[in-house]
Amino acid sequence: MPKTGKLSFMSGKKYVYFFGDAKTDKNLLGGKGAGLNEMTKIGVPVPIGFTITTEACKEFFRSGSVPGLSMEVDGAIAELERRTGKRFGDAANPLLVSVRSGAVISMPGMMDTILNLGLNEDTAAGLARLSNNERFAYDCYRRFIQMFGNVVLGIKHESFERIIEKVKAKRNIKEDMMLSAEDWKEIISKYKQLIRAETGSYFPEEPRKQLSMAIDAVFDSWNNERAVTYRKLNSISAELGTAVNVQQMVFGNLGNDSATGVAFTRNPATGENRFYGEYLVNAQGEDVVAGIRTPKPISEMEKEMPNSYRQLIEIRKKLEEHYKDMQDIEFTIEHGKLFMLQTRTGKRTAQAAVKAAVDMIDEKLISEEEAIMRIDPMQLNHLMHKRIDPNAKVNVIAKGLAGSPGAACGAVVFDADEAEELGKEGKKVILVRAETSPDDIHGMAAAQGMLTARGGLTSHAAVVARGMGKCCVVGCEEIKLDEKKKTFTTSSGITVGHLDTITINGNTGEVLLGEAKLVEPELGSDFKKILEIADRFRKLGVRANADIPRDAIAAKNFGAEGIGLCRTEHMFFAEERLPIMQQMILANNEADRRKELNKLLPLQKSDFYGLLKEMQGFPVIIRLLDPPLHEFLPKREELMVEIAVMKEKKGDARKIAEKEKLLSRVEELHEFNPMLGHRGCRLGITYPEITEMQARAAFEAACELVKEKINVLPEIMIPIVGDVKELKNQKEIVKKTAEETIKKYGVKLSYKIGTMIELPRAALLADEIAEEAEFFSFGTNDLTQATFGFSRDDAGKFIRYYIEHGLMSHDPFATLDQKGVGKLVKMAVELGRGANRNLEVGICGEHGGDPESIDFCHRAGLDYVSCSPYRVPIARLAAAQAAIRNRAKN
Amino acid sequence: MPKTGKLSFMSGKKYVYFFGDAKTDKNLLGGKGAGLNEMTKIGVPVPIGFTITTEACKEFFRSGSVPGLSMEVDGAIAELERRTGKRFGDAANPLLVSVRSGAVISMPGMMDTILNLGLNEDTAAGLARLSNNERFAYDCYRRFIQMFGNVVLGIKHESFERIIEKVKAKRNIKEDMMLSAEDWKEIISKYKQLIRAETGSYFPEEPRKQLSMAIDAVFDSWNNERAVTYRKLNSISAELGTAVNVQQMVFGNLGNDSATGVAFTRNPATGENRFYGEYLVNAQGEDVVAGIRTPKPISEMEKEMPNSYRQLIEIRKKLEEHYKDMQDIEFTIEHGKLFMLQTRTGKRTAQAAVKAAVDMIDEKLISEEEAIMRIDPMQLNHLMHKRIDPNAKVNVIAKGLAGSPGAACGAVVFDADEAEELGKEGKKVILVRAETSPDDIHGMAAAQGMLTARGGLTSHAAVVARGMGKCCVVGCEEIKLDEKKKTFTTSSGITVGHLDTITINGNTGEVLLGEAKLVEPELGSDFKKILEIADRFRKLGVRANADIPRDAIAAKNFGAEGIGLCRTEHMFFAEERLPIMQQMILANNEADRRKELNKLLPLQKSDFYGLLKEMQGFPVIIRLLDPPLHEFLPKREELMVEIAVMKEKKGDARKIAEKEKLLSRVEELHEFNPMLGHRGCRLGITYPEITEMQARAAFEAACELVKEKINVLPEIMIPIVGDVKELKNQKEIVKKTAEETIKKYGVKLSYKIGTMIELPRAALLADEIAEEAEFFSFGTNDLTQATFGFSRDDAGKFIRYYIEHGLMSHDPFATLDQKGVGKLVKMAVELGRGANRNLEVGICGEHGGDPESIDFCHRAGLDYVSCSPYRVPIARLAAAQAAIRNRAKN
Repeated sequence: MPKTGKLSFMSGKKYVYFFGDAKTDKNLLGGKGAGLNEMTKIGVPVPIGFTITTEACKEFFRSGSVPGLSMEVDGAIAELERRTGKRFGDAANPLLVSVRSGAVISMPGMMDTILNLGLNEDTAAGLARLSNNERFAYDCYRRFIQMFGNVVLGIKHESFERIIEKVKAKRNIKEDMMLSAEDWKEIISKYKQLIRAETGSYFPEEPRKQLSMAIDAVFDSWNNERAVTYRKLNSISAELGTAVNVQQMVFGNLGNDSATGVAFTRNPATGENRFYGEYLVNAQGEDVVAGIRTPKPISEMEKEMPNSYRQLIEIRKKLEEHYKDMQDIEFTIEHGKLFMLQTRTGKRTAQAAVKAAVDMIDEKLISEEEAIMRIDPMQLNHLMHKRIDPNAKVNVIAKGLAGSPGAACGAVVFDADEAEELGKEGKKVILVRAETSPDDIHGMAAAQGMLTARGGLTSHAAVVARGMGKCCVVGCEEIKLDEKKKTFTTSSGITVGHLDTITINGNTGEVLLGEAKLVEPELGSDFKKILEIADRFRKLGVRANADIPRDAIAAKNFGAEGIGLCRTEHMFFAEERLPIMQQMILANNEADRRKELNKLLPLQKSDFYGLLKEMQGFPVIIRLLDPPLHEFLPKREELMVEIAVMKEKKGDARKIAEKEKLLSRVEELHEFNPMLGHRGCRLGITYPEITEMQARAAFEAACELVKEKINVLPEIMIPIVGDVKELKNQKEIVKKTAEETIKKYGVKLSYKIGTMIELPRAALLADEIAEEAEFFSFGTNDLTQATFGFSRDDAGKFIRYYIEHGLMSHDPFATLDQKGVGKLVKMAVELGRGANRNLEVGICGEHGGDPESIDFCHRAGLDYVSCSPYRVPIARLAAAQAAIRNRAKN
Repeated sequence: MPKTGKLSFMSGKKYVYFFGDAKTDKNLLGGKGAGLNEMTKIGVPVPIGFTITTEACKEFFRSGSVPGLSMEVDGAIAELERRTGKRFGDAANPLLVSVRSGAVISMPGMMDTILNLGLNEDTAAGLARLSNNERFAYDCYRRFIQMFGNVVLGIKHESFERIIEKVKAKRNIKEDMMLSAEDWKEIISKYKQLIRAETGSYFPEEPRKQLSMAIDAVFDSWNNERAVTYRKLNSISAELGTAVNVQQMVFGNLGNDSATGVAFTRNPATGENRFYGEYLVNAQGEDVVAGIRTPKPISEMEKEMPNSYRQLIEIRKKLEEHYKDMQDIEFTIEHGKLFMLQTRTGKRTAQAAVKAAVDMIDEKLISEEEAIMRIDPMQLNHLMHKRIDPNAKVNVIAKGLAGSPGAACGAVVFDADEAEELGKEGKKVILVRAETSPDDIHGMAAAQGMLTARGGLTSHAAVVARGMGKCCVVGCEEIKLDEKKKTFTTSSGITVGHLDTITINGNTGEVLLGEAKLVEPELGSDFKKILEIADRFRKLGVRANADIPRDAIAAKNFGAEGIGLCRTEHMFFAEERLPIMQQMILANNEADRRKELNKLLPLQKSDFYGLLKEMQGFPVIIRLLDPPLHEFLPKREELMVEIAVMKEKKGDARKIAEKEKLLSRVEELHEFNPMLGHRGCRLGITYPEITEMQARAAFEAACELVKEKINVLPEIMIPIVGDVKELKNQKEIVKKTAEETIKKYGVKLSYKIGTMIELPRAALLADEIAEEAEFFSFGTNDLTQATFGFSRDDAGKFIRYYIEHGLMSHDPFATLDQKGVGKLVKMAVELGRGANRNLEVGICGEHGGDPESIDFCHRAGLDYVSCSPYRVPIARLAAAQAAIRNRAKN
């Protein structure tokens, strides 16, 4: 029985494991401990040491102390002394250790590292003798005191630095390198005085005392403010706890046969299968970080330290074969002997992730499933959009929400018309608005990107931008717009004027002053290959939300298997159409309405013609008019102001009367809560002629294409259905129009009629509705809105507060709320399929492009997801991951 | 085997039953047929006849004809001839019958009655001989032709009348009475010419032919336009069909020993247990209706026709004892022989309903349960509010929705301030608004009643009016307001100006021009007694929604057992408080906000003090601030206009800047969909100091009352909770404040903390929420809104359209949507109680005062309903009915 097990036997718990002795369990050993344990097991050289488990930390917070832990640590130190032949406090052969925290998930804010623990006046002198390098020994000692003083005793780093600065000033020296052993001794003496003054106690000379204080400090740091905040922000459970790793010191700074380095087993930027890293001879890890000396590329080591290099290459191979993934490693060479200090999965760019995954399949290192699971779908965004050069200097002046990925630079404009105008002249502009509305679309189309002060991740600006594949930052509440002065001002007081250049980062939500260098997207063969593999695994179909042929082409190129949502109202905002639409709405009777609708018919028909032709062979779901009519009308408050001013000016009475008549109709159509008003099928029911016109446009377009021998699959979708009677009403109109049109053209055409499920009531009564529907498409934006009772346009403010204060883990408009909204979705799928076995079920809300939500859709048994064109590759990959992830469970 | 059964045996169906031969089944025999059948069974004299069942009608519409029916009818006529000794077409002793429709539910628009069928040239002559009264016989004949021509052949009534007028003119006669037998013969001849001309066929002289045409006409009338519309409007199933009653004619106009009359077994206006009715000697039913002769009160019959009267009194007793309810009867006396032609439950006023029910218990005619079930709870409204004198002449100029019961007259004002001003002067005013908002409350309090052009049954105006017990008509879209000119114009072009007098009827939604006579409400001892009985049966508690002591007193007087909802925000709209509230909202930081909140604290505390004191011994649920903050601020569009005009006028720059600053804050708080925005607990979470102030006010008031030895039961309710974390957050603040306050006062006080369930998500996750809640209160207004995805303020327009077009059977804001919203309620009750056995569950939405919804609440197992004070009696009665109605099922 090892000595370390003695007391754990009595307490019934074991808190301490030597590297290589434990089962590799990240939750128990922490990330770092697990790596050290695993490397030891597979025979990779690691400095001897042990891990105090996360269980000890949890017990520490439960009961304030860990019974039996100190005796267990004593036993472990005794074993460490036995194995290394060195002893704590032995000047002749001192045992020095590093103490490092090792949480399950790496976390900034926690106590990181204390090196050289075990040094005191005696052992420092001993180290000087042993190393034959007094300066080295006392430098080690002062580093230890400094780290210990800072992280264990809480003394400011600057207090120590000031002491060094004074001594350097006295010596008239500029670089630490120039300080002698004697200088370090003087500094050490002053360090100790500082500690005495600040803490009221002497610096602990006893190594066991140093160790137990360091361990407690690691535990304590788990609950310091920064760590707590970080956990909250990143949804990391406070229950996890941290492990502590105690490990024999090795030194890379013992001469030219010593070195230290960091490396990736492959290139983390490109994914290329070449060893990638840097090292420094006669240096410690800190020196690499400090950047005083420039490290050499790892390839040079082959000449300089051939034995170590060969060994390192073998380890690189061993680790990759063992972990089956790119590793990020740290190593130290002490007098020619190589030690690995850390291995972990290497962080990589999207490009590298894709290339490495594809390469590793070819290398037979991993299976296709493993390759698929390895890539973060959201990272694919980086491959599809411009981004800010990672090496560019940036001046962040505000931060909003990452509304649509990519990056864009341009001159600031505050008006959609101006954006269009300048856009036509070839000028790059960023459209800055409080929020966007459908009548900004022409400006958005012309701009490089959009910045809005309000609105969440599914606000109009964000949705439209993602659809267009443009960069967009939304809900940037730090900026205040003054649209009249044409400026905006950040919370730190920086004012940006009309036509000033800014850069926006749609991946982070950052707003930068000036022009930052952008990097073009790269879509290589690896990207295509990984998606082809994904397609073989996924069960979910992937369609796109697209309203116009241009978007449909993009979607098809990204692999969309149909249009899951064509929002027909977007077609009515075009310059030449809006006036007709307005006349239609302002009409007081059906005859006048029909007159205007007849003008819209050929326009809408040509849209559908283009879309259906582009998507031939694939289904195209056309949703009937959805938004409230007043969205198409002049704004009420603007009219009010206009009239008041005209009257004040004693303007033309007839013109005033005209405006007042318009206002009166706008007032009639005004709604307190447009989202909860006269929209969707409610419009089609009260104005059946609108539904009729839209259906006619769709079927005439389809029939003409059939005549041209083009295979089209139109599906008409009825929005905002809350009761089966509504669906029936609209279905009858659509069906009648379809049959009439098909007969008129004398063709054969099959089509479907279905409905959105976007109201809780529709989900609750999905069985009844399914009897009249050929397909369901979950409109999870509206469904989320209704289920939570907050709208995506208005909830931005408090959702952010909620997330920051731990009341919500994520924005439910971005990632589906599986517990609440998901319950309704599942209920609707079950009820719907129960009533109609052939029911096709998909999702066309923004969640259709969110990986976590896609996983839910897979589990809920949906047939497909539909998302904006630029999300299609993400959805394909995420759908494959969902299939693989849930395979075991089924 | 009766002859009528001959063919039904072959077809397997029997469609014809003689009165007295069938089981009395209203669905099969229709209302009239069931009454005739039942009277025959219990030995009440009824002219012999038979009923053709509703099944025949259904078959008629299924297959266009009813196989076997004509043979069955032939059999029945043969039997009728056998029993009466008269024969169809026999001039010597002609059989004459009446043919009447008899739907399950009485329905205007259907073919009603054809009398004297069987008459033709021969039998008319025969009848003249038999009756020894030629004029009588030919009058009968012409009446028959006229009715037949009109209802069977579709010839306009006026065409017949014109013929009579011409003959009268020729004879220089004014009254029909003066026409001789010869005149009638001439008229008959012209009638027949008319029929020939209009239909191309001769008038059918053959009685069997007449009968079969009449039967078909009754069937056809089931689906005529008026009947279909009526069914749609009244949610009557088209499946029911109508029965046809064929009955031997009896004549009340055969001399002074003949008579006809109608009566109620009790007084239908007062409920008094005295025979009530009228009769006419030597007359037919038509004559009573025509009003040419004035009928005599039934009591006079005792002298004039003592035998018949005695017999009638016995029948009255027999029918009441048999039906155990007040009956509405029709009778005819032919040559001294009494025949009953109809009996049905008598329609009665609210007062009569209550008195009769109470009396009948005392008379041991019915049980208490039966008495309870007999009264329509909504009718109680008439007893609690003024109403328009039923005899008053009225001039209806528009119709809206019946927002709040009662009636009111007053001068039209368009502004809440003016309403208050004139109200103070003692002037009666009606406040007319497009819609009301919380800042109209002072005007509403001063007005007699309110009329709004917009909004549904749960719009602000309706809800507040019901709470105040005031009459209100809402959503009167037929009127167009011109607030500047201070007029409104109806759709028929009538313009009503400032201070013109109108009367509004909150029971019907009608708007009347001028002052109509109003009747004061009467609340007698019977009313109290019936409610006391109801209290013994009901399982549901009944609380009231009341915000101020005055409303609480009203509620308590009506029998409320607590306050189920005190809306604390209503307290902030008072004149002296609104400015403080506005300053609080406009504050930019917590400190400034707290300063204003401290000013509100004593005001709110005194409100709670009054309310808790008034409701001592009963629970009082105080809901924390619910509406979005901008409701308290000046309107955005008004500020915009103001600023624009000031600028145009080149006004004081400092004042403009001030207004602009205010506007900018209002803009910040502006929401697209306030119902879906920053409200309810979302406010309390982001501004915890508001929750703290409100909790402190409540608990300080409660503690002071405890010190005064007054028993108070405060319960704090958190609104708009969608996740248990929100509830937890607010609960912590309330609890902390409560404990602090209780400690400060050194008293013992028990209190509860609970939540509204008003979002679908809260219902879906009620189990989690119940773990933190001591009570649930269903806010079914918001829950309905979110479940359907339409707001009560905006949906008025299309809900009306939906109901009119059969897409919806009722307004879901008035009567709970049991299928959809109810599913969520039931789910929440089950989940909630499953997680917390002691959970108290109630409802405080407007549905808490709706009888049908109360029945649902009973079935869903709620503990109580809470409604506006004036609905408390209705709820008490409805709850008792629910308990009785559902007893059998449990």
